[in-house]
Amino acid sequence: MTPLDDCLALDAQDPLRGLRELFALPDGVIYLDGNSLGVLPRATAQRVARSIEQEWGEGLIRSWNSAGWFDLPRRLGDKIALLVGAGPGEVVATDGTSINLYKVLSAALHHARQETPQRRVIVSERDNFPTDLYIAQALCAERGFCLQLVDGGQVEAALSPEVAVLLLTHVNYRTGAMHDMAAVTAAAHRAGALAIWDLAHSAGAVPVDLHAAGADFAIGCGYKYLNGGPGAPAFAWVHPRHADRFEQPLAGWWGHAAPFEFTPGYRPAPGIARYLCGTQPVLSMVALECGLDTVLAAQPLGGMAALRRKSLALTDLFIALVEQRCAGRGLELVTPREPARRGSQVCLTRREGAYAIVQALIARGVIGDFRAGPGMAASGTAAGHGDILRFGFTPLYTGFQDVWHAARHLHEVLAMDEWRRPEFNQRHAVT
Amino acid sequence: MTPLDDCLALDAQDPLRGLRELFALPDGVIYLDGNSLGVLPRATAQRVARSIEQEWGEGLIRSWNSAGWFDLPRRLGDKIALLVGAGPGEVVATDGTSINLYKVLSAALHHARQETPQRRVIVSERDNFPTDLYIAQALCAERGFCLQLVDGGQVEAALSPEVAVLLLTHVNYRTGAMHDMAAVTAAAHRAGALAIWDLAHSAGAVPVDLHAAGADFAIGCGYKYLNGGPGAPAFAWVHPRHADRFEQPLAGWWGHAAPFEFTPGYRPAPGIARYLCGTQPVLSMVALECGLDTVLAAQPLGGMAALRRKSLALTDLFIALVEQRCAGRGLELVTPREPARRGSQVCLTRREGAYAIVQALIARGVIGDFRAGPGMAASGTAAGHGDILRFGFTPLYTGFQDVWHAARHLHEVLAMDEWRRPEFNQRHAVT
Repeated sequence: MTPLDDCLALDAQDPLRGLRELFALPDGVIYLDGNSLGVLPRATAQRVARSIEQEWGEGLIRSWNSAGWFDLPRRLGDKIALLVGAGPGEVVATDGTSINLYKVLSAALHHARQETPQRRVIVSERDNFPTDLYIAQALCAERGFCLQLVDGGQVEAALSPEVAVLLLTHVNYRTGAMHDMAAVTAAAHRAGALAIWDLAHSAGAVPVDLHAAGADFAIGCGYKYLNGGPGAPAFAWVHPRHADRFEQPLAGWWGHAAPFEFTPGYRPAPGIARYLCGTQPVLSMVALECGLDTVLAAQPLGGMAALRRKSLALTDLFIALVEQRCAGRGLELVTPREPARRGSQVCLTRREGAYAIVQALIARGVIGDFRAGPGMAASGTAAGHGDILRFGFTPLYTGFQDVWHAARHLHEVLAMDEWRRPEFNQRHAVT
Repeated sequence: MTPLDDCLALDAQDPLRGLRELFALPDGVIYLDGNSLGVLPRATAQRVARSIEQEWGEGLIRSWNSAGWFDLPRRLGDKIALLVGAGPGEVVATDGTSINLYKVLSAALHHARQETPQRRVIVSERDNFPTDLYIAQALCAERGFCLQLVDGGQVEAALSPEVAVLLLTHVNYRTGAMHDMAAVTAAAHRAGALAIWDLAHSAGAVPVDLHAAGADFAIGCGYKYLNGGPGAPAFAWVHPRHADRFEQPLAGWWGHAAPFEFTPGYRPAPGIARYLCGTQPVLSMVALECGLDTVLAAQPLGGMAALRRKSLALTDLFIALVEQRCAGRGLELVTPREPARRGSQVCLTRREGAYAIVQALIARGVIGDFRAGPGMAASGTAAGHGDILRFGFTPLYTGFQDVWHAARHLHEVLAMDEWRRPEFNQRHAVT
């Protein structure tokens, strides 16, 4: 049994431990839900207040130039690029993840229609994030493509000569399983398909190298591991070999080659700027920048590689502690045990009570979340797991002692049948 | 010549004068650009700080329920509905104006394809806001429709049996000319076309009654007369007769009938909720609500009708003062003189120096803005005016004495040839 003292020692030796001071963690909370909403950076409140009071209040419309509002999508994009193996000028921070997926998938389908007109299939994973599938379905209906859903292990086998685009989420939101981006992208290219990656659970969580993988398009989320705040703007990346060649239909003024000329005809900007549409929510963009700066603060300490080492140590420890302390309590590990196949979260399943166990943990200050298993309508041949208890580990602010206490609370909730209390079994909406 | 004392008396008698106290107007500024970015409400900084520090910082993921984040698009939509003659549950505050136009125009084209397949034309105004035209062009290219642009006076004549959709901005962004929404909508319906209205320069500026006009779809902007802050989320309205019938392709989780079930198949929510897509920028949404509350603060004082009376008094006064003091200085009125045909702005044109005059005024603390006339590429048969000096009058915070001083400064800039100074003639990006 790993003693608490060992965990305290791990924290004391952790070269990243100081980064925790960048965050306003509430007292009495062990927060294991940074994969859903990252913790508030200490710098954010003051930075947003300055944006409101000085930039907006005093500067008013002049701040579009003087406060650099117009540059925000590109400037923040360049910061994100450092975290995902993209070059400067290749990423924009803008709009939401789903809208950015719509843009890049539209461009990919344009590409397919033009260069490989016989290819009419988009392949994705049955267990992909549902919104990604909704967007793909909508575009398929509009453009005469067909969406083929397969199990995670069957992706490469599905890459037939009809496939135009492979659309995958790098780290699965529900299981924490991670694809080998380079290998899967290479397989897609060998089969003549484009590869689009959703980095929602990857950016800031695991090392990503879009260029090394040769990926075609990528999108990602600002409010999870990037700590940008609730509903923070998302991002889009397009490989430079495609960026100037295809258009996307959300053709607003900010993506125009001459955005201030207000000409009646649309002329897309060169490069990634054509993936911008309209005016962005500046206050939320400013908060996103504070979040990005927390992740970039790890750069002098080893960057994403160092964060990944700690993330794997945290998740390994959690798996070990749960298997030690909760043995025989009906929990099963859903996340792959192999480090190379898992993101920065650990997911467990249990035949009964997953929702209530998460609620009981939240009442104790251990915040993870619950994700329902595939419903009757959805199950089909889907992966065989049921309801999920999901625990995200953000190495920027999560310590080894937090992991120890989380496992202890989980043990107590189960050993004392605490989760059976009625108040933990009343469902309400969660995200 | 209207003396300043008369203007001071008008302010003293103005029943809306107290509303100015709701805003943090900077010292030494006469702000006539609320049609581009509304002034900061005093309540916003504290409200956003609470959202950051308590809702996000302390509440973390729990605030999706406990702080009502999930309800924001509908709750703010209901507030906007009060300002545009829509019913409760008919409006959502979400995304940007251009993206919302893409959604409603997509739905309208679905409608056309289904019910009037022989109609393949969208009519709009040559001088419409360029982004609206870009979005329409992109959808036309995608869906096999054709965009026909006409001069403002030719809209009704263009409503041939081929027209599926009439897409207009209610108040022209550059000239301030206002369409008669009820009459034009009736003409569109008589011709068998749907009417989509862009309310960017109308919502919070002039009375709008979407139901009385029988309009089909509307969109609008949150950061102009609604004072929601830079890049604040926009809004979308769909008449209940259409809301359940058509889908839009930005099919994200927030528009799903059961958004928390995470099922792989998209099932659109009933009503306006299907016009939501992904997670919204909460901090910017919270700021938008503070802006909406400033406009709704006029409700007990007569609401939009009272704001309109004051707006017309302000713009009438500005026109009169400019014509008195700047006679013979080469300025021409672009905005229609007839009250029923103008919004809440006054636009002037001048053969030479429009840009520099605006810069000289800004240097004096009178903030209006400049809009270039139609360029060579764009001119065609377009309206015959050139570069524009644009002055927006927001009755919530603009006083009669502000108008007097603005006209005085304009006179001085012209009479003293101040605008010829080199520093006012260096172009930089403006929005």
